[in-house]
Amino acid sequence: MKRIMSFAGLAVLIIGATAAGIQSPQPKPYKVVFDLTTDDPQDQAAVLRWLREVASVNPQNEMEVVMYGRGLALVVAGRSTLGDEVKQAIGRPHVSFRVCEIAMRNQKLEKSQLLPNVATVPDGIGEIVARQKEGWGYIKAVAH
Amino acid sequence: MKRIMSFAGLAVLIIGATAAGIQSPQPKPYKVVFDLTTDDPQDQAAVLRWLREVASVNPQNEMEVVMYGRGLALVVAGRSTLGDEVKQAIGRPHVSFRVCEIAMRNQKLEKSQLLPNVATVPDGIGEIVARQKEGWGYIKAVAH
Amino acid sequence: MKRIMSFAGLAVLIIGATAAGIQSPQPKPYKVVFDLTTDDPQDQAAVLRWLREVASVNPQNEMEVVMYGRGLALVVAGRSTLGDEVKQAIGRPHVSFRVCEIAMRNQKLEKSQLLPNVATVPDGIGEIVARQKEGWGYIKAVAH
Repeated sequence: MKRIMSFAGLAVLIIGATAAGIQSPQPKPYKVVFDLTTDDPQDQAAVLRWLREVASVNPQNEMEVVMYGRGLALVVAGRSTLGDEVKQAIGRPHVSFRVCEIAMRNQKLEKSQLLPNVATVPDGIGEIVARQKEGWGYIKAVAH
Repeated sequence: MKRIMSFAGLAVLIIGATAAGIQSPQPKPYKVVFDLTTDDPQDQAAVLRWLREVASVNPQNEMEVVMYGRGLALVVAGRSTLGDEVKQAIGRPHVSFRVCEIAMRNQKLEKSQLLPNVATVPDGIGEIVARQKEGWGYIKAVAH
Repeated sequence: MKRIMSFAGLAVLIIGATAAGIQSPQPKPYKVVFDLTTDDPQDQAAVLRWLREVASVNPQNEMEVVMYGRGLALVVAGRSTLGDEVKQAIGRPHVSFRVCEIAMRNQKLEKSQLLPNVATVPDGIGEIVARQKEGWGYIKAVAH
């Protein structure tokens, strides 16, 4: 009887190990902040692609895009050429878009002019620095 | 008597809370190093604007601009197109400009050719890495 | 006798100090990851120059170039215009080149098409974030 139980236990272990082996080896989740200051369409497309790819590596990865300077163009309604893609990205979990309010004042933009669910922060550079301080990775979103 | 004291205590609390509310909520000071390797006039203007804006958020914020590669053009006397703005920025507290000495040798530049109060560091990349190690935030100063 | 010994001691101190002065003051070694996403020839040349210069500051410095997006062009055999320089850089200790496998799939590139000794990583952005987490410095390799 003892032997049968051991055997059963072993079988459970083997099945468990096999199941773990079948699911692709999920890397540890990470957090990354993208610093976007350009309105270059290729840079904008790149950052949206990176958001998809980072999520594909591990759906638990946290991503934040902080925009200031010309980076705001990506999320201004009626001006963004990638508005649909931005909306899709914002709709996914663990993705946020945050616009610098100083840059908004410089460019005379109101919150109502931003695409839906785009957040704002008082200070874009301060937001990025705070994320780095919290241990987030930093990527300057320039692709060209 | 007990009641009066309680009332007095409450009044103190309310006044204290109001006073705290009146002073604008100063965010915690931070430190940030800007990595400037371009001589693009728009990038140069952007980094000077960011220095002003970071200081406006909290005058205690520490800022350092490290220049190497083509970034040196901003602080070479007679070549910089934004010399006056650089001088103003250097004159403010908590702002420093540091030029990589390796880049200076590559470009056959002497310290005497730099704008007043521009400092040098033996190794610009090493300076930036050391700042990150010390917990400073990092911003690549590319705006286009 | 006491006087002679003191004098001898002083001489040792002076000789020791002079010897220490002669050897250049080696700065503490550091680790830095370069984030390369451009195929601009000037940016490519800059990152290769920085690898040489960082090593010249302290041969123990650790350097890693992570390439994704258009950054791959630097290490694709027959396409890179700086292939010889890349090979020389890879041949030096403490230097590694790592290509993002997601970017390789996007661009339909096989490992066999990369220059010799160029490594790959499953996720270029994840690699950079992991290095930052480990305390490596981060430099966005954009020079223009």
